[in-house]
Amino acid sequence: MPQLRLALAQVDARVGDVAGNSSLVLERSRQAVEQGAHLVAFPEMVLAGYPVEDLALRRSFAAANRAELGSLAERLREAGCGDALVIVGHLDRDDEGIRNAVSLLYGGEITATYFKHHLPNYGVFDEARYFAPGYELPIVRLHGVDVGVVVCEDIWQNGGPITALGKVGVDMVVCVNGSPYEHAKNTERTSLVVRRAAEAEAPMAYVNLVGAQDELVFDGDSMIATNHGEILARAPRFSEHLLVHDLELTAGGHTCTEVSPEPVDQQAPPHFRPKTLPAFRVERITLSPDPVPEYEPLREDHPVAEPLTEEAEVWAALVTGLRDYVHKNGFGSVTFGFSGGIDSSVCAALAVDALGPEGVYGVSMPSHYSSEHSRSDAAELAERLGCRFRTHPIEDMVRVFVDQLGLSGLAEENIQARCRGMTLMALSNQHGHLVLAPGNKTELAVGYSTIYGDAVGGFAPIKDVPKTLVWRLARWRNEEAEKRGETPPIPESSITKAPSAELRPGQVDTDSLPPYEVLDEILDGYVEGDRSYADLIAEGFDADLVERVLRMVDRAEYKRRQYPPGTKITPKAFGRDRRLPLTNLWREERPV
Amino acid sequence: MPQLRLALAQVDARVGDVAGNSSLVLERSRQAVEQGAHLVAFPEMVLAGYPVEDLALRRSFAAANRAELGSLAERLREAGCGDALVIVGHLDRDDEGIRNAVSLLYGGEITATYFKHHLPNYGVFDEARYFAPGYELPIVRLHGVDVGVVVCEDIWQNGGPITALGKVGVDMVVCVNGSPYEHAKNTERTSLVVRRAAEAEAPMAYVNLVGAQDELVFDGDSMIATNHGEILARAPRFSEHLLVHDLELTAGGHTCTEVSPEPVDQQAPPHFRPKTLPAFRVERITLSPDPVPEYEPLREDHPVAEPLTEEAEVWAALVTGLRDYVHKNGFGSVTFGFSGGIDSSVCAALAVDALGPEGVYGVSMPSHYSSEHSRSDAAELAERLGCRFRTHPIEDMVRVFVDQLGLSGLAEENIQARCRGMTLMALSNQHGHLVLAPGNKTELAVGYSTIYGDAVGGFAPIKDVPKTLVWRLARWRNEEAEKRGETPPIPESSITKAPSAELRPGQVDTDSLPPYEVLDEILDGYVEGDRSYADLIAEGFDADLVERVLRMVDRAEYKRRQYPPGTKITPKAFGRDRRLPLTNLWREERPV
Repeated sequence: MPQLRLALAQVDARVGDVAGNSSLVLERSRQAVEQGAHLVAFPEMVLAGYPVEDLALRRSFAAANRAELGSLAERLREAGCGDALVIVGHLDRDDEGIRNAVSLLYGGEITATYFKHHLPNYGVFDEARYFAPGYELPIVRLHGVDVGVVVCEDIWQNGGPITALGKVGVDMVVCVNGSPYEHAKNTERTSLVVRRAAEAEAPMAYVNLVGAQDELVFDGDSMIATNHGEILARAPRFSEHLLVHDLELTAGGHTCTEVSPEPVDQQAPPHFRPKTLPAFRVERITLSPDPVPEYEPLREDHPVAEPLTEEAEVWAALVTGLRDYVHKNGFGSVTFGFSGGIDSSVCAALAVDALGPEGVYGVSMPSHYSSEHSRSDAAELAERLGCRFRTHPIEDMVRVFVDQLGLSGLAEENIQARCRGMTLMALSNQHGHLVLAPGNKTELAVGYSTIYGDAVGGFAPIKDVPKTLVWRLARWRNEEAEKRGETPPIPESSITKAPSAELRPGQVDTDSLPPYEVLDEILDGYVEGDRSYADLIAEGFDADLVERVLRMVDRAEYKRRQYPPGTKITPKAFGRDRRLPLTNLWREERPV
Repeated sequence: MPQLRLALAQVDARVGDVAGNSSLVLERSRQAVEQGAHLVAFPEMVLAGYPVEDLALRRSFAAANRAELGSLAERLREAGCGDALVIVGHLDRDDEGIRNAVSLLYGGEITATYFKHHLPNYGVFDEARYFAPGYELPIVRLHGVDVGVVVCEDIWQNGGPITALGKVGVDMVVCVNGSPYEHAKNTERTSLVVRRAAEAEAPMAYVNLVGAQDELVFDGDSMIATNHGEILARAPRFSEHLLVHDLELTAGGHTCTEVSPEPVDQQAPPHFRPKTLPAFRVERITLSPDPVPEYEPLREDHPVAEPLTEEAEVWAALVTGLRDYVHKNGFGSVTFGFSGGIDSSVCAALAVDALGPEGVYGVSMPSHYSSEHSRSDAAELAERLGCRFRTHPIEDMVRVFVDQLGLSGLAEENIQARCRGMTLMALSNQHGHLVLAPGNKTELAVGYSTIYGDAVGGFAPIKDVPKTLVWRLARWRNEEAEKRGETPPIPESSITKAPSAELRPGQVDTDSLPPYEVLDEILDGYVEGDRSYADLIAEGFDADLVERVLRMVDRAEYKRRQYPPGTKITPKAFGRDRRLPLTNLWREERPV
């Protein structure tokens, strides 16, 4: 059986940095070839970065991708990688439109280009806006092995290129991906890779991006699966990795190039369902007809990375999202209010894990409503984390506004939050830190925040984390520290005390909101589960409570839109992929 | 030749208000039937409002649309409209997916439902995210006339239902629309209606929404065109109108129900281009086989509304956008800073035109850098407009921040703008006004604004108006006042003086920006025209200047995203339909 040494380059490409991404491909290819790899695969759109959003529409950007691709092929050959097949995703543009493309570089040339066929247009994806689907199906013979290539969504929908490859025959499929992290998505991803390998009747090498781009985190999770359900190798998640693995393959000597269009299995959501198998144009290209001489496979001690616990996975995603947003936008440090509460404490622990203690500038901004424990818990947090910490009382600022403008009630509450926001922005302008907004998903859902107040900032690390999960993460992070013999970063008092905005005497969150345990359950049903008012009542929730929560959610759309971006960890994050009209008179609870 | 009296109901539907929109349909249908109409057509999605964005995904909302539609058919019959064909757009959902639907109500029943075939997924449209395309083609015979129906995008793309209707034969086409305003779009729209009428070989009745929904304005422009290029009737734009018109039609007695799929003319952009004419399922339904007895057509003095000048059209769009955003969100009044500059002056004139002088609360917020003319021009503006006006100096507020935090330079400039923003928000919280942000498109493009400062607010009336057009509108509005013998609203000095943010002594905009005439030209090329750095140099702009402007634009994405929504008047408005990554290392001017 022919052997092939694969290298899956799980890398962190940067959106727009075509030259930098090209150098990354060159460098990793060189490392792979030094380790004897015959094939090096990079993720979806590695040259352009992913997702490029409206940058896809710029002709000059597509032209830069094409130009760089040509010179990269040549540079790979000059660097001694000409005998390896290097698979590189990029943006392309031709007479049919803009393309999500992947090119096969070999011997200093672009030997073939595949265009993504299935274009996702739901959730965080808008690819039908940008790209024209491909119908070409290049298959290259490398050392006697017939290799087909597909892109990401091509395996998430039924029909299409995988079905076609299964029909015409290949010995291996390479699937290149820009597949964003979602909580527990990797289980679904694994079963999908296994199922599509079986459908293609060939092993599948799956390579994914790693690192964060705006609200999306890519967790890597690159793997190699046989067509019989076995995972042979799997990269660690959330970090760059070159997964080098030897495969023994069946060389089928396939020659078929005809795909007959036909109806396919229809399990996808109806409007994403392909009606028929399109007439793909199969092209077979021989790069090297004969198998490599038999060799001793690499020994790997742990070819399949250990799975992560739920909290470890979410924590890693949040750290990655925060770190990359800060660094890729050219910042070295962050600042935000240390209130002594659970949200800012968890953000502080995340920020220190992401940027180191020297990159985190905590600011305590007490008012005359602030409790003594707020101040002491904030100081203790900074002490435990070893980060910078200053105190700027807001009483004088607040007094000028309240007195001059005659403020009371909500206006007086909000001006306190806003003086804090202004203080942080002033410190940001003066010292160059990025301001973080430490609000959680539960608050965002119901609009329990002050626009231009605690919503101020360039990034919101726990924007997609429900309050009850914030507590769980705090406990988990402290326990992890204890296991490692380190100081738990979060003061116990910040975890156990009743949450309060402290904007008036004795205020606690439950004055305005239901207990967070109930609230998070209702929100999960309404937001994540698309449950109606009637559904939620039927599930046993109190009708008045449901009505109250739904009204709060429906009214908070403007506040949510104005909130800074933050790492997405659930399917229905507020931000990138959930958009309701601002002017919207629909009320779920209205009897119809 | 059979006659038919059509009523095109150019109405302002409200997103989410299914019951209210249904009442609107009932009321307008009754008026139309009182005027003898045989057919009453309402715009796209009139029951749901348009666009509903992610509300489309809620099952309960689709169910409410269906339920309301059934009861509406019955209520129409009870109200004496049972003999008229009432054409009503709505949201629908079936086994194939979610639908952008239009139902034909007659005799108390839903006699047929058409699903929009071509789903726009570019610019402000995301319909491929939500809707499954339709392949049903109901044609009803009403008083001997065969009537086909299509929806909006169905006439903007080649192939599809119009081609099919032309092949099987109809006597008239009704096109229902939610077609948003864009500067000068109505010329294109008219030629399209004429072209599609010719293609269908039948007159076309075109009915469009009017009024604003978030960033979109619908200008109406409902019309009736023959298949020989003549516009028989046309409604005034930007206002509700019931266009009642008599048509003499050819009754073709069509019976064909077979459409053979075939390739079509390919003039559309490649990736929106249909490859073939689909196999539509034609259903012919006879409601009333015989023509109405001959009658005397209505006399209309001005069946075709006068066209608007460019400035009048833009002004009407901006007034509509502002008025509807404020009112539909439940506000009665607005407040914002009167700086004495051109932007706030034009916003003030717009706001008074939209809401009346009693709904506008101007606030002068001088600092010690404010010039004397700023204060006097602001006061004069309020005087001319007859609106409310107060002065709140910000010196004391600014001093506390500057002294306590040790601010200088940019941090000191920004804190002034932010104290103004906080003042406006405090007044909003205390008194219930909506805050307006008076920034223009040029400033937004280059990021010449302070986040949480002058960018504070719930709506930005001139967000999509380039600075040079702001001046033109000011002059036009003053001239219009003079023509009508009224006081010109905008002080001449606000139009002629050099623009300045007045955040440091002697500051003028041209310290930081090129002259606005040049800047707007470069921005038009880069943003609207998708020109590259190289293109702009080739067009004769100074290379250093182009590089400087492009860098400013590329860096301002975060600021633009945080800016409040505002009325869209150009194809490339910042907001609804232009989305670049926040983390983006692509630099247009980088040599590749």
